[in-house]
Amino acid sequence: MEGSFQEHPYVPRDLKLPGFVPLSLSQSTIVGVYGISSLLVVSLVWLFSENLDVILSDLYFYFLASYGFASTILNYGRSLKNSNIDRWLMCWWAFTGLTHIILEGYFAFSPEFYQDKTANYLAEVWKEYSKGDSRYAARDAGTVVVEGLTAVFEGPASLLAVYAIATRKSYSYILQFAISLGQLYGTAVYFLTAYLEGDNFAASPYYYYAYYIGANASWVVIPTLISIRCWKKICAAIQVQGQKKTKAR
Amino acid sequence: MEGSFQEHPYVPRDLKLPGFVPLSLSQSTIVGVYGISSLLVVSLVWLFSENLDVILSDLYFYFLASYGFASTILNYGRSLKNSNIDRWLMCWWAFTGLTHIILEGYFAFSPEFYQDKTANYLAEVWKEYSKGDSRYAARDAGTVVVEGLTAVFEGPASLLAVYAIATRKSYSYILQFAISLGQLYGTAVYFLTAYLEGDNFAASPYYYYAYYIGANASWVVIPTLISIRCWKKICAAIQVQGQKKTKAR
Repeated sequence: MEGSFQEHPYVPRDLKLPGFVPLSLSQSTIVGVYGISSLLVVSLVWLFSENLDVILSDLYFYFLASYGFASTILNYGRSLKNSNIDRWLMCWWAFTGLTHIILEGYFAFSPEFYQDKTANYLAEVWKEYSKGDSRYAARDAGTVVVEGLTAVFEGPASLLAVYAIATRKSYSYILQFAISLGQLYGTAVYFLTAYLEGDNFAASPYYYYAYYIGANASWVVIPTLISIRCWKKICAAIQVQGQKKTKAR
Repeated sequence: MEGSFQEHPYVPRDLKLPGFVPLSLSQSTIVGVYGISSLLVVSLVWLFSENLDVILSDLYFYFLASYGFASTILNYGRSLKNSNIDRWLMCWWAFTGLTHIILEGYFAFSPEFYQDKTANYLAEVWKEYSKGDSRYAARDAGTVVVEGLTAVFEGPASLLAVYAIATRKSYSYILQFAISLGQLYGTAVYFLTAYLEGDNFAASPYYYYAYYIGANASWVVIPTLISIRCWKKICAAIQVQGQKKTKAR
């Protein structure tokens, strides 16, 4: 792959990456570590989510009781268990939040990751992913901005969403809707700028479909489904409130 | 302004714009037409909004009555007038929706506007605005994508928001929230990509502050205020629904 006229494996071939250090870790190690870590996070959140709910509810219950918020307490307590869909959503938000903060956060604030010599796992991730989209190594402004916004705003907000679902906060749906919309907007900017710039940033069709398309597909499909669900839930609540107000007259 | 070493008034000076045709209209004409048209739209929507509400409500009332949706009718009818804040919001959504569709829609789909010889008003707008941000004339991918998304999704959605507020649709808040968030995300991408690319796209400090900062400031301040308002309204509705559910047990 690494021919005579360039020292990096990326496309376009004439991309200048002074001081590029080739990958130390294999593709299977890089993908494997991410896959296993993600599976671990998802499994832990899934197993923990039922109890997490009860623990957090209990803590909140006692907190509220000690301050005398009697009416709010009605919404909390042992009798309300998280539904399976809420538990899956907590898994998703934990997984996507940690991905945003750790992986994308590292990229956004490490302009010279491709010069890393220490086999730092996070640098290796982006050296590998750049085979699917060399704009990462090239530090394309649109890509950096989308990743930066995702890491700084959507990452922490995703972890907040886990907490909001577990404790049934009234802002749970609107928060999930806001993050999902941000993810969709970011993905749209990401794909459309590549399209306008010639869509020639992948080292091969394999990397194009596996990394550029494949790795990003979840962040199109899942945020779309969550947005639609939250939209419906919010509309239903507004309708109930409207009817209540009208009847109260 | 148009010196010996370039044929266009934009910065950076070495920007290549083959076939550039200088502006025909004066700054005051361009800004004046936009200002007066916007004032006209806002005034009409303001004057019309109280009656628009009643007209649309009546139409909806009779439509519902003819299909027998008795419970839904309770939310509609002559007794509910639009509050002043709703009327201002309708003015904003009409103004911003038309700006998105007409001005930004023209830009997104007219890659060669700077070659226009016909003194087409929309081409003149972007020739003038490019003095504040030459990425418009240069067809920067990030700028085109943000403007394209704004024109195609947020423009029509803004006009839908006028209708949704007037007819008190249950999706009114979540729609306004979604558009505002999109506007904020777009503005963030717009400013941050310029910053990362050196922030050197304005012909002078005057154009930098008047066009690049000044003309975009409304799309930071107003969407922020609307997002906060919608967030609060939605949380309140979810809370009411939660209490209702709990009491129903």
